[in-house]
Amino acid sequence: MQNKVRIVLVNTSHPGNIGGAARAMKNMGLADLYLVAPRDYPSQEAVSRASGATDLLESAVVVETLEEALADCQLVIGTSARERTIPWPLVDPRESADLVFNEGLETAFVFGREDRGLTNEELQRCHYHVHIPSVASFSSLNLGAAVQVIAYELRMKFLASQDAPAVQNKWDVPAATVEQVDYLLAHLEKVLVDIEFLDPDMPMQVMPRFRRLFQRSRLDQQEYGMLRGMLTSMEKQARS
Amino acid sequence: MQNKVRIVLVNTSHPGNIGGAARAMKNMGLADLYLVAPRDYPSQEAVSRASGATDLLESAVVVETLEEALADCQLVIGTSARERTIPWPLVDPRESADLVFNEGLETAFVFGREDRGLTNEELQRCHYHVHIPSVASFSSLNLGAAVQVIAYELRMKFLASQDAPAVQNKWDVPAATVEQVDYLLAHLEKVLVDIEFLDPDMPMQVMPRFRRLFQRSRLDQQEYGMLRGMLTSMEKQARS
Repeated sequence: MQNKVRIVLVNTSHPGNIGGAARAMKNMGLADLYLVAPRDYPSQEAVSRASGATDLLESAVVVETLEEALADCQLVIGTSARERTIPWPLVDPRESADLVFNEGLETAFVFGREDRGLTNEELQRCHYHVHIPSVASFSSLNLGAAVQVIAYELRMKFLASQDAPAVQNKWDVPAATVEQVDYLLAHLEKVLVDIEFLDPDMPMQVMPRFRRLFQRSRLDQQEYGMLRGMLTSMEKQARS
Repeated sequence: MQNKVRIVLVNTSHPGNIGGAARAMKNMGLADLYLVAPRDYPSQEAVSRASGATDLLESAVVVETLEEALADCQLVIGTSARERTIPWPLVDPRESADLVFNEGLETAFVFGREDRGLTNEELQRCHYHVHIPSVASFSSLNLGAAVQVIAYELRMKFLASQDAPAVQNKWDVPAATVEQVDYLLAHLEKVLVDIEFLDPDMPMQVMPRFRRLFQRSRLDQQEYGMLRGMLTSMEKQARS
């Protein structure tokens, strides 16, 4: 699905931002970059800020008009910071990623100039406007940062569509069983009495607190072995 | 809640990235920036890339060690790109924002060096690691872009916690009623017959298709008036 999404940058002033956008795209698995009349491009500054995403810069399509960049697209989503005179269908970045995946159309995300965004005419060529929910008093994101947010939401949605967790929480050792934790707590209690930390006649809430701690921390079997070993060493010390 | 979150940048090499991080924070309503032994700071480049978020740079706390930056925090979340030797509790950016809001603790997000990230020792000071789900073959985000993603997820969660939609889809005119759309379609049908586009004896699926179109587009009352006016003008033309 991600290969049906292109990023279109209109009239970008600072080539560093083109590089930043390319890097953000490649980080998130996007590849198709269109540049509409960039003011200073190609540029060493773009290559430097792309930080290895030079393949995207090399394959970027440079065109003179927004029309050319959009001609074969079926869904156009334009970034918009301001309220417009005519309201337009408006989504947040997460909803924009939903649109891409639910509709399955050739989609363009259009990003405007650093200082003035997209013109009203350009915005009216978009089926939807997407607004990154910045604070009203300081609402203008860096261009590369705006591309990063959209590309991140597309990637999160892509991973969800693959039934892949966004991050894989791999643990290398199996979790301790209930029985192991019970052994550990029994062993601990014995040692705590041995070392005279725990008074069997006045146990207070010591053992329930230890149980809560070990259960909450989801002990793994290696940690279980380590704690049992430690208790055995303590027992030997206490006896000697 | 957002004022309980600080962003900690460790050993940043490029002051432009400090500026980029400050801008991303301010865009998303965060204010507390800690800089641990920045290599080149203060710097004009940071001010330039902050693009108006100079107040965050001015109030940034510069310290020598990570310990100082974290001392009064209760929850520490470190950004990590790589797999580590010992697995650590790992979340994605959205889950990290959930942690912040569900636990309500003084929280630090810690970001490492541009080239090498955080050391194993620094990562072990974190309760959680957060991984931005980049593609494996090109996984390292620009520092400002990484701060942007985390700050964006915090803002989305903050807005949700306020029961505020992330973006307000305000329409200035009420939607057309069912009755209005029925009038419009009846009017349209009459005109289409008048202009001999529609053959009443062979209506095909023309009117259901127009109904589907107007219903799908959720006509507003001004558009309704505009279309009725257009049909009236067409009628006059057809008659003359």
